[in-house]
Amino acid sequence: DGFFGRWQHRNATGTLPHCVDQLGTSGALHNLRLVTGEATGEFRNMWFADSDVHKTLEAAAWLLASQPDDERLLAFVDSTAALLSKAQGDDGYLNSYYTAVKPELRWQEPHYSHEMYCAGHLIQAAVAAARAGVAAELVAVARRFADLMVDHFGKADSPMALDGHPGIETALVELYRVTGHRPYLDLARRMLDQRGHGLLNGERFGSSYLQDHVPVRQADEVAGHVVRQLYLLAGMVDVAVETGDDELFEAARRLWEDAFGSKTYITGAQGSRHRDEAFGDPYELPADRAYGETCAAIASVQWNWRMLLATGGSRYADEMERALYNAVAGSTSLDGTHFFYSNPLHLRTGHDGSHEDAPSQRLPWYSCACCPPNLARLVASLHGYTATTDDTGLQVHLYSAGAVRAEVDGVRIEVVTRTDYPWDGRVELTVTGSGPLDLSLRVPDWCSEPSLLVDGVPLDVTPDDGYLRLRRDWSAGVTVVLDLAMPVRVVTAHPRVDAVRGCVALARGPLVYCVEQADLPADVVLEDVRIDPAAAVVHTALPAVPVALTTEGALLPPGGDALYRTGVPENAATPLTLTAVPYFLWGNRSPGPMRVWIPTTTG
Amino acid sequence: DGFFGRWQHRNATGTLPHCVDQLGTSGALHNLRLVTGEATGEFRNMWFADSDVHKTLEAAAWLLASQPDDERLLAFVDSTAALLSKAQGDDGYLNSYYTAVKPELRWQEPHYSHEMYCAGHLIQAAVAAARAGVAAELVAVARRFADLMVDHFGKADSPMALDGHPGIETALVELYRVTGHRPYLDLARRMLDQRGHGLLNGERFGSSYLQDHVPVRQADEVAGHVVRQLYLLAGMVDVAVETGDDELFEAARRLWEDAFGSKTYITGAQGSRHRDEAFGDPYELPADRAYGETCAAIASVQWNWRMLLATGGSRYADEMERALYNAVAGSTSLDGTHFFYSNPLHLRTGHDGSHEDAPSQRLPWYSCACCPPNLARLVASLHGYTATTDDTGLQVHLYSAGAVRAEVDGVRIEVVTRTDYPWDGRVELTVTGSGPLDLSLRVPDWCSEPSLLVDGVPLDVTPDDGYLRLRRDWSAGVTVVLDLAMPVRVVTAHPRVDAVRGCVALARGPLVYCVEQADLPADVVLEDVRIDPAAAVVHTALPAVPVALTTEGALLPPGGDALYRTGVPENAATPLTLTAVPYFLWGNRSPGPMRVWIPTTTG
Repeated sequence: DGFFGRWQHRNATGTLPHCVDQLGTSGALHNLRLVTGEATGEFRNMWFADSDVHKTLEAAAWLLASQPDDERLLAFVDSTAALLSKAQGDDGYLNSYYTAVKPELRWQEPHYSHEMYCAGHLIQAAVAAARAGVAAELVAVARRFADLMVDHFGKADSPMALDGHPGIETALVELYRVTGHRPYLDLARRMLDQRGHGLLNGERFGSSYLQDHVPVRQADEVAGHVVRQLYLLAGMVDVAVETGDDELFEAARRLWEDAFGSKTYITGAQGSRHRDEAFGDPYELPADRAYGETCAAIASVQWNWRMLLATGGSRYADEMERALYNAVAGSTSLDGTHFFYSNPLHLRTGHDGSHEDAPSQRLPWYSCACCPPNLARLVASLHGYTATTDDTGLQVHLYSAGAVRAEVDGVRIEVVTRTDYPWDGRVELTVTGSGPLDLSLRVPDWCSEPSLLVDGVPLDVTPDDGYLRLRRDWSAGVTVVLDLAMPVRVVTAHPRVDAVRGCVALARGPLVYCVEQADLPADVVLEDVRIDPAAAVVHTALPAVPVALTTEGALLPPGGDALYRTGVPENAATPLTLTAVPYFLWGNRSPGPMRVWIPTTTG
Repeated sequence: DGFFGRWQHRNATGTLPHCVDQLGTSGALHNLRLVTGEATGEFRNMWFADSDVHKTLEAAAWLLASQPDDERLLAFVDSTAALLSKAQGDDGYLNSYYTAVKPELRWQEPHYSHEMYCAGHLIQAAVAAARAGVAAELVAVARRFADLMVDHFGKADSPMALDGHPGIETALVELYRVTGHRPYLDLARRMLDQRGHGLLNGERFGSSYLQDHVPVRQADEVAGHVVRQLYLLAGMVDVAVETGDDELFEAARRLWEDAFGSKTYITGAQGSRHRDEAFGDPYELPADRAYGETCAAIASVQWNWRMLLATGGSRYADEMERALYNAVAGSTSLDGTHFFYSNPLHLRTGHDGSHEDAPSQRLPWYSCACCPPNLARLVASLHGYTATTDDTGLQVHLYSAGAVRAEVDGVRIEVVTRTDYPWDGRVELTVTGSGPLDLSLRVPDWCSEPSLLVDGVPLDVTPDDGYLRLRRDWSAGVTVVLDLAMPVRVVTAHPRVDAVRGCVALARGPLVYCVEQADLPADVVLEDVRIDPAAAVVHTALPAVPVALTTEGALLPPGGDALYRTGVPENAATPLTLTAVPYFLWGNRSPGPMRVWIPTTTG
């Protein structure tokens, strides 16, 4: 019943059933039935709507791994797998749009088609099913399609093995991991090698939109469409790790420095531009026009997870945590059935929320519905991101109430966690095992004063590369209490981030806070509010907000009609008490204005 | 040989011949020849490329009015008019795309087609030709097309008279003014009345993109695609004035308050978003991602000109001046043959200039080439915007060396102006006339200390609604010296403009200044530069920059790797001397970074 557990419960009871329903109403299943002959009429929705089906299937498969007796879910998975199987061509090809609408253009417009992108999500669903031990038919369908792609694209003289939207690369590596079938890995590598030579038709958006402007090993800046870039990076790490390709891994590490050094929001969101859904220039991080697509935050978690697995570096877990608790969590309403596609850090007074790409509140579905089922699959597998093992022991990266069991080199270990994280930094771990092992506990980058008690005895708490490492024999059972002090932090951005100059953000633990109109007097315009960065910040609680923050600030006079004036004005501000709530909870009370970065009284 | 004169000379010798050449190479003329049968092959370029032809013709016609013996220009106009005449259908229809490519969809997709938009530019070219007394064939072609539209769209039971891209409205009113033929005006009014009811297909961009979301009389916010909105507003004023429609004029005035109160850059540019080339929310005015399309600044001049004519209000002339000297002038290179399509106020260090919509330097042409020929036609007619007459006299709005002759109520007046404006605020006017008249001289909003000498005698200089009004008998000839003091102004934006918080801009007279990398040491990153808003500012001169500004500031240390940090850092800055150049001249030395809004040492 921790934070993650409640999130997963909401996902299982709210988001996933909602996604399943939408597959019916949006036309995604209808399109597959057009192929099987079970339906007639027009193709509906986006040309890559098959991926909505696959992502929802993946979420269902992960969920079935923990609740295998859910008959409704099993029925959905089995019936949908059967539909996919029926829609699959004899040769293994499976794509409703290119089968029903454009059969003559199969594989002919890879810059646009999303055929491999959809195939990638099909394969990921199959990998989840294989790991959950369900839906053998789904695994068979995915393998048939993967074998077709290997056959068609995998030889030296094969056509170009590229898709405008990456995603297939990680999927093929994952399928290789599940099956041990090397040609899948080789094809993924081939795809990476062929990318970046301008082979895709970049006419409409340019090559960099598709990450086809520079060979992936030579890139030193993230560029173009954010989700495509991040999925590609996850694939780069996967291939690098499985093939021992240091050059490829170095490229991913270089791009990580670029992305997280100058192109990431404080919420972990990425994508500074609505135009092209793209990364911006270095330090171009507007709060109001932040695109921060939900799928990009999900992709960032996936990429950082792979970097973490490859290196054990805590910085990657820090970024996973930042994105999860802010950009990802904030995308979904408290009822689990309304979503943001873009995740701004400032919704202006007077905002025109009529556009789907920048609405004033979460919407139940989108014409391009990539995000909701992507959330469903991530959250359904969230527990899998909390801990890892290596040759020497167990590493705990993310803290939430629950239990982890593992066996390392013949030694069994179980860690039961009790905590109110992220509302409270106290994490109590009851550890029992069958022998000696390293237990590594991550100290988040935001925590400068961790403390540790082992069976009540204080221990040295100097982190080693971001982790407290305890080596002991766990046979007797031990209680470890990690206390991650969570003072409120007043955060500033790098001075080159023009968009938030003279502003601070409040943060506590992994949570970024924001000021919402709902907590201001009705006649106060949010943009006239200032915060005193030196004032004391007090914890309060609001309905559904365990820890809100209250501090002092000021209210500027309206500022007059002149948009520009000569001289630097002295504004006679009046005192104002401010309340801030966690960013991830914004927009659950009213669709009013919100801002994360608050101008200071001194700035 | 004043500022405007040199600009017009560059336009006549650089920009216009360049546009004429591009009509050949871009395919715009080729498309018309497809229709006439003089060419074969594919339709090339944009589906509205006819408008490039029409705009270039309009520019040529304006130019022929002042240099009627230019044989090359006459030959271009006559041969192109003949081509248009030949391409015109028997019924009067003229559009190369819908004739050559989509004949079955004529008038069927008005949200997309730009058929009337192109017709509007054809008519504007004809109006210019009629006023210049050239190319009678062009006038005939335009009238035939206008008559067809009146016939097809002008009756009570006619189809919807709307085009997704406004522009036709002003054109029809202008044609009415030239011909006195009332049905043109009535059709323009009909178009305004039908707009705003969601009748256009707004599927892709939404109704507000097309200003079809609210009836024009009820609108209280500018919205959507900026050029469309501004052309529509110009048409609203034209129709309101010609029909005495106060309600319609009030709507335009209301939208003016909105646009210039919260959605205009200090350069006069408009359009805060690359996505949809659109207005943003109130006070959403990012410097780096300013779209500020050149055509929008041109449209703003045209709209403000109409507001000025309708009211005599100096604020409209202020906005014309601001846009002309900054957003419009800055769009063109010193050689007159390279252009910006978007006009940002900040080009970041590390900017990716590979996209045509945000290049690092001016380009010779664009795949959507609306701006260059639009510039050509505006600049060719620039002298026409400097002064007006009414029942009582002559009003001078814009100052540049040259002569104005007019006759008001039987009294002739000639004003010869000598000035180095905008580099110097001294304007010497030699006035001779045949009797008593009001001479009104605009005092720009940026000038708080005008002074006036009439034949060497100081006069009271309290402006009346932004104008100094001199009523006298001009028969004897008078020398008027208006001195518009031009101290350097340190300008701040409204506190709600988040994007430039803690920044100031330097301005002098009508010119906004900027800091360019070209004037900084090579190893200084522009984003690390700060300005001391209290430091003295000194005039200097640089090659091709008559008045540059030098002042004191500071250089921050690079700021470290952390994108976010706890606490408000104290940065140990080192002193730095800054040079600023007029914004309109930026990018003529190197494609390096530039910024108008400079963070202060105190902010």
